[in-house]
Order: sequence, then structure tokens, then C-alpha cells
Amino acid sequence: VTRDTPPGGDSGDVTIAVDAMGGDHAPDAIVAGAAAAAEAGVSVILTGRPGQLRSLIASQPGHHRPANGAGPGRAGLLRVAAAEDSIAMDEGALASWRRPRSSAAVACSLVRRGQAHAVVSAGSTAGIVVTARLRLRPLPGVARPGLAVLLPTQPRPTVLIDAGAIADPKPEMLLTFAHLGVAYAQLECGISEPAVGLLTIGSEPSKGNRVTRRAHELLAGPPPHGNVPLNFIGNVEGSDLLASVADVIVTDGFTGNVALKTIEGTAAFAAAQLQTALTSSAPARAGRVLARRALRAADARMDSDSYGGAALLGLEGTVVIAHGASNPKAITSAIHLAAALARGHLTDKIRDRLGSTRGTHFLRRTPHPTPTTSHTP
Amino acid sequence: VTRDTPPGGDSGDVTIAVDAMGGDHAPDAIVAGAAAAAEAGVSVILTGRPGQLRSLIASQPGHHRPANGAGPGRAGLLRVAAAEDSIAMDEGALASWRRPRSSAAVACSLVRRGQAHAVVSAGSTAGIVVTARLRLRPLPGVARPGLAVLLPTQPRPTVLIDAGAIADPKPEMLLTFAHLGVAYAQLECGISEPAVGLLTIGSEPSKGNRVTRRAHELLAGPPPHGNVPLNFIGNVEGSDLLASVADVIVTDGFTGNVALKTIEGTAAFAAAQLQTALTSSAPARAGRVLARRALRAADARMDSDSYGGAALLGLEGTVVIAHGASNPKAITSAIHLAAALARGHLTDKIRDRLGSTRGTHFLRRTPHPTPTTSHTP
Repeated sequence: VTRDTPPGGDSGDVTIAVDAMGGDHAPDAIVAGAAAAAEAGVSVILTGRPGQLRSLIASQPGHHRPANGAGPGRAGLLRVAAAEDSIAMDEGALASWRRPRSSAAVACSLVRRGQAHAVVSAGSTAGIVVTARLRLRPLPGVARPGLAVLLPTQPRPTVLIDAGAIADPKPEMLLTFAHLGVAYAQLECGISEPAVGLLTIGSEPSKGNRVTRRAHELLAGPPPHGNVPLNFIGNVEGSDLLASVADVIVTDGFTGNVALKTIEGTAAFAAAQLQTALTSSAPARAGRVLARRALRAADARMDSDSYGGAALLGLEGTVVIAHGASNPKAITSAIHLAAALARGHLTDKIRDRLGSTRGTHFLRRTPHPTPTTSHTP
Repeated sequence: VTRDTPPGGDSGDVTIAVDAMGGDHAPDAIVAGAAAAAEAGVSVILTGRPGQLRSLIASQPGHHRPANGAGPGRAGLLRVAAAEDSIAMDEGALASWRRPRSSAAVACSLVRRGQAHAVVSAGSTAGIVVTARLRLRPLPGVARPGLAVLLPTQPRPTVLIDAGAIADPKPEMLLTFAHLGVAYAQLECGISEPAVGLLTIGSEPSKGNRVTRRAHELLAGPPPHGNVPLNFIGNVEGSDLLASVADVIVTDGFTGNVALKTIEGTAAFAAAQLQTALTSSAPARAGRVLARRALRAADARMDSDSYGGAALLGLEGTVVIAHGASNPKAITSAIHLAAALARGHLTDKIRDRLGSTRGTHFLRRTPHPTPTTSHTP
């Protein structure tokens, strides 16, 4: 089924611009993940080389059959917007300047022009962050966007922000990150008054480095943004990241990125240790067979593919950055995350917390039609 | 057996000053751990309240029997040096100034006066670091000491430095930390030319924050200290900490402390996830019983008690900082680590790498007699 009509009639639904050329397994894994998301009801615009993308779309399993038990109105549209250039995974932030027509840049421009609500990319984090900052306006009161990730704590996830957007922030930016993280936790984790902790190296306010000591004062002080107070619980440490002591943990992008990757590395290390231990003797091997399903369940809870990726918050459209090694499942999760944030009007909620300028942003809630060919999967 | 003679005759052996009042389980766990180390041949001077310590020493299991199959000459001495004050676990760095006669300060003074070779404390890291910096001279070429920990990688550990001594170091200090870490890895891990990595948030030299970008230039540049080159392999990330990609990983004390505690927290989280998974169904429980020994082996490799603690390097005597929650076994490990570093002349080796002033330090290798009563366990 190929339609050329715009998605304007899909009231309440959202359109996500997906950078089809970013990621280790692009564009194949991206197109497959996007097709699954479209089949589940999200409209997607893939940005990249049109010929390549259209032939990949045509080869998707669901392309020639109607969407599961639903008419074409239930499935989202799967369309293509042309971008001849792309940012390679090993290119840094400078590529964002060198490549104004990259697939990531075109995806951001679709949001800027009101043709999509949010962006998904599995490209290099540094490249996407700079591209997004070049293409998307910051929300009022936001000096720098922050990258938020969900840590897999129980019973609900913990938001870590900033996980790598700004390596050398000023202390004031950590206060903004706290507000961004709170808006995100309220929407995505359903927590009404998220508890905010500051990641540092000791529990007393005087502990930490220059940035965190000043950030502590700001977080503990009276709210500078209108009358929206923070539920600040004080300093937390690295050992608290997965201990469910706070709903939002604020840090600079350097420390946050090191901490996030340390969690990933340690989880992989622990799994490898366990694997070695469980293959070292016959009784252990037998035990492993019996415990396999349980171990898989534990593994799934640590599995970043299920979590949809990091959300760059504070710009006029949310940008979800999926892991570079994302498989189709991870891309689908990232698109669903972006759609949920758009449906929940996250940018408007951030505006309400931080901004004073209001009244014009309702124009941006409904995307304009985009002049591209479209497909339903 | 109680002896009052000094240990001068124990050629080649070392004396370790142990802060008996620092730690969550002080002084009981400290005295028990020290007694075991002394029985194994290390001479120990415990600093703290003499009456309390002497009665604890008298209650140790080995106190009234000769050391295992060896004469009194094989067992180390266990003595007491009086310190009426101590730094509480919840006191910060300022306590080091307020309490000049704390058990930690007295332990450092024993090294300063040549009566012990190294210090062990399970007190608060911030308190011990500042106390040591007040009491012990820096080695030539060392602006600030760095805290080194051994990460449990296979087949040999990885040195992380700085794990929390200096929260806001200058980039030049990271270069010094690299040399301190290399000397430590050579001695403690037996690696002749340790590979040095810089902890940051991307592999290219341009990635990172202001401190790491400048530190990268210094580490990659010509050696500033005589002609001792570094085997610098470039940037590493949080996910590399347990991946055995470098023998020494250099970072600032803020990031290093967050990373270390993130490793601890993630290992605990993974263990809890596994525990839940393995008690959730009957087959899983059966599997757990069969796999129990293997799981215990994996757990032991992650167990910080076996690793002896963090070593504060770059002062005229090494200070080993054990975990605040140390049990007797962890204290014994810490004392053995301090003894091994003293026997291997770590401070002299650091002097050789960094210093230009030589010739007087041999005086400090043999400790002077200390005027305290002594015990063999």
C-alpha cells in the first residue's frame, strides 16, 4: 500500500523522523525497526538515500499485507525524506558542521519545520547532539540540552541526566538538567514528584568538585524558574545509581557518560564471570541448564535494547539517541519512546516548568504535511 | 609472648602503622586483622587508645600460643602507639586539622619519624587523605598524591588512579598519576611496561572535557621526568575499566571515585538480580543449588575484601586505605598490601621515576625503633 496523502487526518497520532543512515547496522536495522513501529501505529519519516531506503522498505515482511487486523488507518505511515549525505560513526562533532545535508540534519529539520514531532537516531552521540543543537531551537530557559537515560532500577527506572551532551557544563546547567529530568520522569515513569539527587563523591554538601558544590547550592536553593520547586534529596554517589534512592540523578555530561558506560561494562563483566563459573564443572553446568530461564530474565532487565535509548531534552523537539549497535528491536523501542514523549507533550511540559514565553507553541503540536512519498508497511 | 625489644634485628622485614580507630568496625576488626597479619610475619604498630587496644590484643586467639610452627622470630611484632583522639567516619577533611592527635595522624607520624614504613587505615577516605598530606612529605616531583585501586580484571588487575584523593586536579597532575600508577603496577602486578589509558568519553584525542583534553596532550608528549617514557595507549571509556584494555587507567579523583562506586553498585545490583532470578521458580532453585560453588567463585573474584584496599601514592610513605566496612580479613589484606609495597621499595621507585633529588632516601628504608610496648600474637 502506497499513499501520498499527508498524515493530517490521524488525529492524536505522531510522526517521528528517523535518521536511517546512523548506526552500526544502518540502514537495514533502522528500516526494519521503523517498519515494525509503523505497523504498531507510529508514522515514521526515514531520512537517507531514497533509492536504497525504498528498496529496503519494499523487502520488509509486512509490506505487502495489511497491518495486523487493522485497516491502513491504524498502521502508521512509513515515508522517506531524501538526504544524500550522512555522518559516519567514527566522525566527531565537527561533521555536524561539515555535513548540513546529513540524514541526521534532515531529520532535525523535519521537526524544525513542523513536519515531525521528534527525532530518532542511532548515529554517534556527539554528532547527533551537535547536529540537533544546530538545527533545533532551545526551549526558553534552557542554555544547553541534556541527555537523559533510564537506568533499569526496580520497581521503576531512574533518570540519569546528563549522560553525555555537555562535557564541561556550568553549575547552572545542572539545575536546568534537574528540571528536564523531572519533566521526563513525570511523563515516562509516571512519578508525580520525582526525588532529585546530585551525583558526587560524598554525602555532605561540601563534598565533590567545584561544579557539584555550586550545583548543590543551586539545587537546594529557592526555585529560580517561576514557582516550580524541586524535590531535592541531596548528594548521591556512584553506588546509588542502581539503588533506587532517587528518581532523577543529575550530573555533568562527562561524569554521566563515564558512569553509564561503567554500568554497561560492569554488567558485561559480571555476566562473563558468571558464564565462566557456570561452565567450570559438571554440577555447575547442570545447574545452569536448570536456571537458564531465570538467568535470561535477569539479563533482560539489564538489556539496554528494551529501554529505547537516551533522550536529548531541552530543544523544541525531543531527539532520542539509540545505541550505535542497535538492532531492529532497539530501533523500534526508540521510536516508541520518541512517540510517547511527543504524545505526552514533553516539550510543552518543559516549557511550562522553565519558560516564561508561552502561547505560540501550540502551533507546533500538529505536524505539517511533508512533501515525500509514503508507504504503509 | 610479649616483647619490648625493637624490631631492628628483623632484617628485610617491615613495620606497618595501623590506624586502629578508623572504620565502621573499629577497633575490634582492626585489631583482629592486625593480629593475623602479625602472625603471618608483618610487624604492626596499632595507633589508638592503649588500654582498649591492649585488652583486645590479649583476647586474640593466637595471643597465648606460639606462631604456627615458627619461632617468635618469624611472627611479626604487634605493638601499640597511643592516640587518644580519632576521626569519626562521618567527619570530613576538616577533622584532619581539628584532630592533630588522631589515630590516623599518629600512624602517619610514625612513618614520618622513620618508625614505620607504611600506614593502613579504614577511616574515611577524605579524612585520611588530608591527614596524610598534612603529616607526610610529598615525594620530589609530586604536586598531589593519587589514590590507586586494583580493579579485579583477569588475568591481572587494572590500576585505577586517582580514585578519589583530588577532586579538581590540574591536567599536569594526571601525568603524575600515570607515573605513580605505572610504578604501582610494576611492583604489585608484576607488569614490566604497563599500558596507560586515559579515562574519558570518546576514543579520539579531542574527546573529553577540558582536563582530559590537556592531559591527553601531556600523556602523549615527550616524558617531562628525566627519560622515563610512558606506554600511553590513548583514551579509554567507562566500559573499558573491567575490559583489560590497559594496565593503568588515569583519571581525576572525582570521576575515578564515581566510577569505582558505580562498579561496586552495579556488581551488587547484578548479584541481586541473579539472586531474584534464581529463587523465582523450582527448577531455577534446583539449578542454584547445583551451581552454588561456581557462583561463589565468581563472587569471590568481585570481592573487594581480597584486594587489600586503595593505595595513596606519592608521599614519603605509602598509605593503604581499606574500605570503611572492612572486616578482619580485609584489614589483614590491607596490611599485607602495605607490607608488599614497603618491601618492594615503592616510594624509592617513584623517586627514581619522578625525582631528581636522590641519595638521602636510603636512610628511610630501615625504620627506627619505636618506644612502645609490643606484643607478638
